[in-house]
Amino acid sequence: MNVIEAINPRRSIRQYTGEVINDEQLKILLRAGFQAPSAHNFQPQEYIVIKDSKTLELIAERHKYAKALPLAGCGIVVCGDLDKESREGSLIADCSASIQNILLAVHGLDLGAVWIGLHPVKEFSEIISEILDIPEHVIPIGIVAVGHPDVQKEAINRYNEEKIHKEKW
Amino acid sequence: MNVIEAINPRRSIRQYTGEVINDEQLKILLRAGFQAPSAHNFQPQEYIVIKDSKTLELIAERHKYAKALPLAGCGIVVCGDLDKESREGSLIADCSASIQNILLAVHGLDLGAVWIGLHPVKEFSEIISEILDIPEHVIPIGIVAVGHPDVQKEAINRYNEEKIHKEKW
Repeated sequence: MNVIEAINPRRSIRQYTGEVINDEQLKILLRAGFQAPSAHNFQPQEYIVIKDSKTLELIAERHKYAKALPLAGCGIVVCGDLDKESREGSLIADCSASIQNILLAVHGLDLGAVWIGLHPVKEFSEIISEILDIPEHVIPIGIVAVGHPDVQKEAINRYNEEKIHKEKW
Repeated sequence: MNVIEAINPRRSIRQYTGEVINDEQLKILLRAGFQAPSAHNFQPQEYIVIKDSKTLELIAERHKYAKALPLAGCGIVVCGDLDKESREGSLIADCSASIQNILLAVHGLDLGAVWIGLHPVKEFSEIISEILDIPEHVIPIGIVAVGHPDVQKEAINRYNEEKIHKEKW
């Protein structure tokens, strides 16, 4: 699958067959996350992989946008370490680049995923930190719920000339 | 180029031939940016395309990490509109996903690019807002400097088992 062909039709997938991704697929996804750039190459990204069904269900019960997690069967929590990058905004940018890489790699493997937001919604990030024993200097930025898709979604063209400014705003 | 083959060897490119990307390439890159997901699908991303050499030079003079811009010949400033997404953290995440899509599309076109950070470094974002007449409700998050590469960089494997946590931190 060509990179541009992968970027353009990718959609968020929230319906899964229940089959859990295997270790080889997981490694490809994590590798994609690691390959994202980071400001000053500080590489503050850390990953927590959850496959335990009890943990996935607990998160889905307590985070209203995480209902897809148990059936997906796998969640990759992308976190940023403030000891490596002290600027919260840069931490969000670095982790978001990793999440986007993972989402595209998911699509390249014919799997399906959805980005579940955590930080900056304090309620959500605190729930996850508590459940996963994340230390204070680490901020969970988002969870990628990933599994085998049970739905085919049409591509959407979001290109919008009105949002393109030439030379100045 | 396979999507995973595109993600893994991508590197930041700061040396260019001086040949400016054409309109067709630019459209492919912007399209990739638009296709990124956004929290609640608010789509707050906006783009400013700069090809004017005077503007590129002015930015390079005033932003110490933007020296690559004039020779790249094109800068795509990815901005977030606070009127569409009021949470700054989500705005950074959405725009970073768009930037990462653009970087991967650049690589897919055999072009080269580097992500120049703006927000949250106030000094940098204010310079850009001033030069490009960006209104107050819009935050410039980053600039993608893009051009024809004048250097070949070896792939780096950033995969690091120590940063992968199983089930909990």
